Amino acid sequence: MQRTLVAETLKKVGETVTLKGWVDTVRDHGKITFLDLRDRTGIIQCVGNGLEAVSLESVIELSGKVVERPEKLINPNIVTGKVELQIEGMKVVSKAEEMPFDMNKEDLNLELPTLLDYRSLTLRHPKIKAIFKVQEVVIDAFRRALQAKDFTEFQAPSIISSAPEGGAEIFEVKYFDHTAYLAQSPQLYKSLLVSIFERVFSVNKVFRAEPSVTTRHLTEIVSLDAEFGFIEDYLEVKEMAEYVIKFILDEVSRKCAKELEMWGATIPAVSKSIPIIKLREAQEIIFKRTGRDCRKEKDFSPEDEREICKWSKEEHGSDLVFVSHYPTKYRPFYTYPDPDEPEFNQGFDLIGRGTEWMTGGRRIHDYKTLLAHAKEWGITPKNIELYLQAFRYGMPSLGGFAFGAERITMHILGLKNVREASLFPRDMERVDIRLSTIEEISANEK
Amino acid sequence: MQRTLVAETLKKVGETVTLKGWVDTVRDHGKITFLDLRDRTGIIQCVGNGLEAVSLESVIELSGKVVERPEKLINPNIVTGKVELQIEGMKVVSKAEEMPFDMNKEDLNLELPTLLDYRSLTLRHPKIKAIFKVQEVVIDAFRRALQAKDFTEFQAPSIISSAPEGGAEIFEVKYFDHTAYLAQSPQLYKSLLVSIFERVFSVNKVFRAEPSVTTRHLTEIVSLDAEFGFIEDYLEVKEMAEYVIKFILDEVSRKCAKELEMWGATIPAVSKSIPIIKLREAQEIIFKRTGRDCRKEKDFSPEDEREICKWSKEEHGSDLVFVSHYPTKYRPFYTYPDPDEPEFNQGFDLIGRGTEWMTGGRRIHDYKTLLAHAKEWGITPKNIELYLQAFRYGMPSLGGFAFGAERITMHILGLKNVREASLFPRDMERVDIRLSTIEEISANEK
Repeated sequence: MQRTLVAETLKKVGETVTLKGWVDTVRDHGKITFLDLRDRTGIIQCVGNGLEAVSLESVIELSGKVVERPEKLINPNIVTGKVELQIEGMKVVSKAEEMPFDMNKEDLNLELPTLLDYRSLTLRHPKIKAIFKVQEVVIDAFRRALQAKDFTEFQAPSIISSAPEGGAEIFEVKYFDHTAYLAQSPQLYKSLLVSIFERVFSVNKVFRAEPSVTTRHLTEIVSLDAEFGFIEDYLEVKEMAEYVIKFILDEVSRKCAKELEMWGATIPAVSKSIPIIKLREAQEIIFKRTGRDCRKEKDFSPEDEREICKWSKEEHGSDLVFVSHYPTKYRPFYTYPDPDEPEFNQGFDLIGRGTEWMTGGRRIHDYKTLLAHAKEWGITPKNIELYLQAFRYGMPSLGGFAFGAERITMHILGLKNVREASLFPRDMERVDIRLSTIEEISANEK
Repeated sequence: MQRTLVAETLKKVGETVTLKGWVDTVRDHGKITFLDLRDRTGIIQCVGNGLEAVSLESVIELSGKVVERPEKLINPNIVTGKVELQIEGMKVVSKAEEMPFDMNKEDLNLELPTLLDYRSLTLRHPKIKAIFKVQEVVIDAFRRALQAKDFTEFQAPSIISSAPEGGAEIFEVKYFDHTAYLAQSPQLYKSLLVSIFERVFSVNKVFRAEPSVTTRHLTEIVSLDAEFGFIEDYLEVKEMAEYVIKFILDEVSRKCAKELEMWGATIPAVSKSIPIIKLREAQEIIFKRTGRDCRKEKDFSPEDEREICKWSKEEHGSDLVFVSHYPTKYRPFYTYPDPDEPEFNQGFDLIGRGTEWMTGGRRIHDYKTLLAHAKEWGITPKNIELYLQAFRYGMPSLGGFAFGAERITMHILGLKNVREASLFPRDMERVDIRLSTIEEISANEK
């Protein structure tokens, strides 16, 4: 019989239907069994008489009649709360093993290693699943925001032939008889593509071999990248970045109300125009507000990030704030030095809730300047030949921005660890299963 | 002054505007110069008096007045053919070096190595650029087709901890103190995610270390993957695959008329329902039609693929045909054997224009059968622990399909080499630049 989805039962009162899904909960009351069935559209209470025992999370098919519940038994917490299914037949499609922990709690409250050791099971929990609904909306909104502005989507390469920005924190790939690397960013590709398409974006994997286990680092990240040409100045890049972030936050707010509520999360407040401030000005403000003197530092400390966000909220009503003009020599070779103060450049970070959300800025488009910078930064021009080629044959002024899908999901929902915002997080110690376990398996096989 | 896009000039007759773009062509007629300016929206003819010399492909800004052309000088081949710009001022933003070959021909007609050595330049050619417009539409259509059917988008991992389907043709990554690998397919992840989201799709990179240089193989591919649960049988998977392919072809047909015309390409004819035929039946048909006896082969030869497409076109009016029921032991361990003839399975390929377009089928969902198959296929269960876990805790019947974005682009446009359908193709001999060149650079640096 054709499957009826759980959410469709509301329109099928009085009809006999077949539902298919997972056993979410079972409450035995002697002869009568209450069984909650879950599918991708929701949960429905099903009532059976003399039902055979079935383990939680098993996949079953239930046939029966949809009936209205008496007024006083309506459950406002589930979409189908006004109805229930009177079970007439049950078929077990796939019997689940006994649960290793209680899946029926509002919060799983598992330690991270357990959460990840049982990833295929823990992802079923509504609150965990909610994280990836938010992430899906973020990524889709990113694409649609830029499509609306005439950006072309491209697929950035993952395997690269050299480590253009230095060999640290880059993964090596055995590439036939050669050594290749995994891309840390699509930066050079998105820039060169500006000379082809003017405006480009991509959603793609980047890889960071950071030898540290922190709550903020993954070795494999989904990077959301945009770059565009014919800009007047770096503020035009800031405007585009701001438009994209606002578009994303609006979409999450509109489509993920339930998910935000589950996490007790609120969308950050943003002012009509998100403030932008130079690093040195920001440091001066922090000094005045706290007496802490960071005015000669090349970057913010986490403490500074929190303080400048406080300032932004108090003075501008914005949880998000752009900080620009970092010292030129500490940023990548392609960042555009400010003509009026070349020791600082027109790159910027977007800081929100005390941490970095996004990075971007204007890039150098003049071939000679770019080449000189590349050499000064210790890069072998031949290694970035395709990139430089684009600039030799006519490149407009350009800029762009990038941010990680996992981090923005973490920031929006207030997650404690970025690993929670990746379906299958990879780090120094784990690639699905713990790497120490893999060593053991491999040793046993030999 | 604010930039006017080339295509916008049609609505600005009589106005003074600033255009920004690339010098597409220059025709000098003594004092008068005709200069075609190109931006992302099109090309416009600009006319100047005593204009300074400017090299092709340079980025310039032109200010001037938009005027209507006399009736007899209208150029029907460009969108802006009814107007031209009377140049009042020109600023060279980025001067291009001399072209290494003629960019102004309708066909570039370059050998593949040259096409790729100058990738940042050759991608600007309208006919080359058209390939990636088609590819963008294919990928976007794939996503929208499945979003409309309630599929959840996910991001599949690229780094994996073991080589589940054997070590051949897989890239090794130096992963801190361990060896990891690059995923050849998101198959196991998309299957396990059916137990979370029921219906999933992803657009992601897969990697194949095939040690052969053919016109059909890349080492890095954009894979379009879908998988869904609660299917009745493998024909339901075929129906979904067919819906997606038709959706994509319709979108390409609707949005890429110009691009198809440039390549002299036509969208494949498809019948109302694309025929599906078992391998052995297809081989019988080929035998009857040609006398060539392939009835005991485990797979099609290229000759067979061409012949079955001919048959499909002649008998069913369809350029595309599904072939199912390949021998079980030559397909992956998770493929669902047909209960009526277990030596054949319910996997299928979609064949079109004499070559494979897509592969898919029903998968095993019973944990014990799956585990037994895995062992029989020589797989260490511990290495696919997360995947097996999903099946231990309740998995519905499931199936899915996958195809490469580059290959389908190649097939639609009739390209001769799949490298043409990748912005930055990677193969045994090239990662942007030729690997032999990289060796030399690296040797010189030492």
